[in-house]
Amino acid sequence: MSIHVHGYANHSATDKLVPFTFERRDPRGQDVVIDIKYCGVCHSDIHFARNEWGWTTYPFVPGHEIIGRVKSVGNKVSKFKAGDLVGVGCMVDSCRHCASCEEGLEQYCENGFTGTYGGDDKIGGTQYPKTFGGYSNIITADEHFVLRVPENLDPAGAAPLLCAGITTYSPLNHWKVSAGQKVGIIGLGGLGHMGVKFAHAMGAHVVMITTSPEKGADAKKLGANEVLISKDAKAMEAAQNKFDFLLNTIPVGHDVDPYMLLLKRDAVMVVVGSVEPLKKVDGINFIFKRRSMAGSLIGGIPETQEMLDFCGKHDITCEIEKIAIKDINTAYDRTVKGDVKYRFVIDMASLKTYTNRKE
Amino acid sequence: MSIHVHGYANHSATDKLVPFTFERRDPRGQDVVIDIKYCGVCHSDIHFARNEWGWTTYPFVPGHEIIGRVKSVGNKVSKFKAGDLVGVGCMVDSCRHCASCEEGLEQYCENGFTGTYGGDDKIGGTQYPKTFGGYSNIITADEHFVLRVPENLDPAGAAPLLCAGITTYSPLNHWKVSAGQKVGIIGLGGLGHMGVKFAHAMGAHVVMITTSPEKGADAKKLGANEVLISKDAKAMEAAQNKFDFLLNTIPVGHDVDPYMLLLKRDAVMVVVGSVEPLKKVDGINFIFKRRSMAGSLIGGIPETQEMLDFCGKHDITCEIEKIAIKDINTAYDRTVKGDVKYRFVIDMASLKTYTNRKE
Repeated sequence: MSIHVHGYANHSATDKLVPFTFERRDPRGQDVVIDIKYCGVCHSDIHFARNEWGWTTYPFVPGHEIIGRVKSVGNKVSKFKAGDLVGVGCMVDSCRHCASCEEGLEQYCENGFTGTYGGDDKIGGTQYPKTFGGYSNIITADEHFVLRVPENLDPAGAAPLLCAGITTYSPLNHWKVSAGQKVGIIGLGGLGHMGVKFAHAMGAHVVMITTSPEKGADAKKLGANEVLISKDAKAMEAAQNKFDFLLNTIPVGHDVDPYMLLLKRDAVMVVVGSVEPLKKVDGINFIFKRRSMAGSLIGGIPETQEMLDFCGKHDITCEIEKIAIKDINTAYDRTVKGDVKYRFVIDMASLKTYTNRKE
Repeated sequence: MSIHVHGYANHSATDKLVPFTFERRDPRGQDVVIDIKYCGVCHSDIHFARNEWGWTTYPFVPGHEIIGRVKSVGNKVSKFKAGDLVGVGCMVDSCRHCASCEEGLEQYCENGFTGTYGGDDKIGGTQYPKTFGGYSNIITADEHFVLRVPENLDPAGAAPLLCAGITTYSPLNHWKVSAGQKVGIIGLGGLGHMGVKFAHAMGAHVVMITTSPEKGADAKKLGANEVLISKDAKAMEAAQNKFDFLLNTIPVGHDVDPYMLLLKRDAVMVVVGSVEPLKKVDGINFIFKRRSMAGSLIGGIPETQEMLDFCGKHDITCEIEKIAIKDINTAYDRTVKGDVKYRFVIDMASLKTYTNRKE
């Protein structure tokens, strides 16, 4: 028996999100059915809903920063039981047998992971070819893609950990950021503010690199030790060759050269935000200090669990503004304007009131 | 007593190189005096002679791929004796006490290494503020910056090892290229042809990546296992995600995106050739496979010695065309046109005949 679900969807790139009911598959033995409590609003949700990457099909239900409680489990599920606090992030499926999947790096699945929304649903069992995300009251997922969320964390603040959290934790962890290192976080938004918190918790000397003194002041409250204003040419020059690691969260195409010069010999800048081409890049800055630029995509399932456990231990959640789902379209407009500190999270308790379409 | 030296210099950016006599410093206790037998012609010599980087002062004596025999040694020299076959590369001095120097990475000296030509001569002892290179019959250098050259190598073919050789060996070595890996060498010139030889000797499966089928055929003679024509969009697409390492020797600004896509997850492309800005770079190619782009500059003194020993063991030298020094200006024009396989080397025995200015 498939499961009736209430959610919000849009039906074309220019439509607003509106109430929408649909079905999720009849749970399999390895599936966990989750009552969604909160869902974060990621900028990717907006790109996708508005078809800014050109591959969206409609109806489209966004949401991949999902926190909820287990409602029921299949007879093959071993890791979870009803009532557990759990999360689902950007992935609900992958091939499970390629080299990347076998290393627990499902985000780099060589056959392509299935996105929590808008992905090709290879499991099937519904009338829809694409997956539907977490702007809804229930989700069904293979237990492999379900994460355990520490009970000491505020569940609303924990929701964006599933995307913004792991996207910043993974590169800091993979490139072994550690105590005593000087680490720059470039840009203070949904990603950057988590970068500051994680790098601080890892013991690094954290420098917020931003165009805005106001954002610098905010970053200090989140754990930054110093602020470097990127528009201040003298300060940028004085900071050259000083950084052990840079996490670049700028979400648009930009000139990376001034940032590359901040790196010490052999150090790396990891780009996680830019979905647009970077402007021309000066190879000389790479050559003269053997510097690197790398990219990083969310994180694998084992590392996402590690990140959540780290958050539980260090009491880290995201700074959020809670909204009712009826206000999602306003929240999208405010997100595009950068008018949010630092993530909107939908309180799914607000959903029932507004979902009243006939089924 | 300073040493009278015969060489070739130019006296302005638009002048040709002409015979020139000058003095080298009175050797110190740690100095080695070398009778130069051969000197390679590096494209950087031309950029410098023609002031294409804007910092050349004249008179200017190029040459940093130097092979010769020790003529005499100072009383503190322990590593060399008269008659030894030795080399001098791109550096003749560095601070010797910064973190990079202490790690044997003098090329990244935090106080700036002294280039073999056109560098600020901090040792002094001559009337010239800048160092003079190897287009000359004698050079004096601190024994730390003198390399031992295996006697089994052809000394003319060994000359370009001191720059083209170490520039390609160092990244292959630093990023641990090894047997069984699929390694792409992008571009077949002075650098690229050495990249092919080294990667082959290290046991890698070597793919020559070039616009030209003719260069591909040449690369196979040098040790490449396969050729990938970069203008063949279908072949490039079929080769995506297949490479463990890429060495990019293209000497001009270019679009790196098609090359980045060739890398496997977590693999790196190292840029050694481009002294011009790279065109816009698509961050997505970095993010989706956690790929990296890095740079690398020549190599440190210990690694340069290791490279020469590796060449001795594997009988590796450069493919060269020997010239008399009177033909250097023609050689420059041909180098700019890419009309050389793969490096001109000046036979310094040709120098005496043509150096007849009064001293």
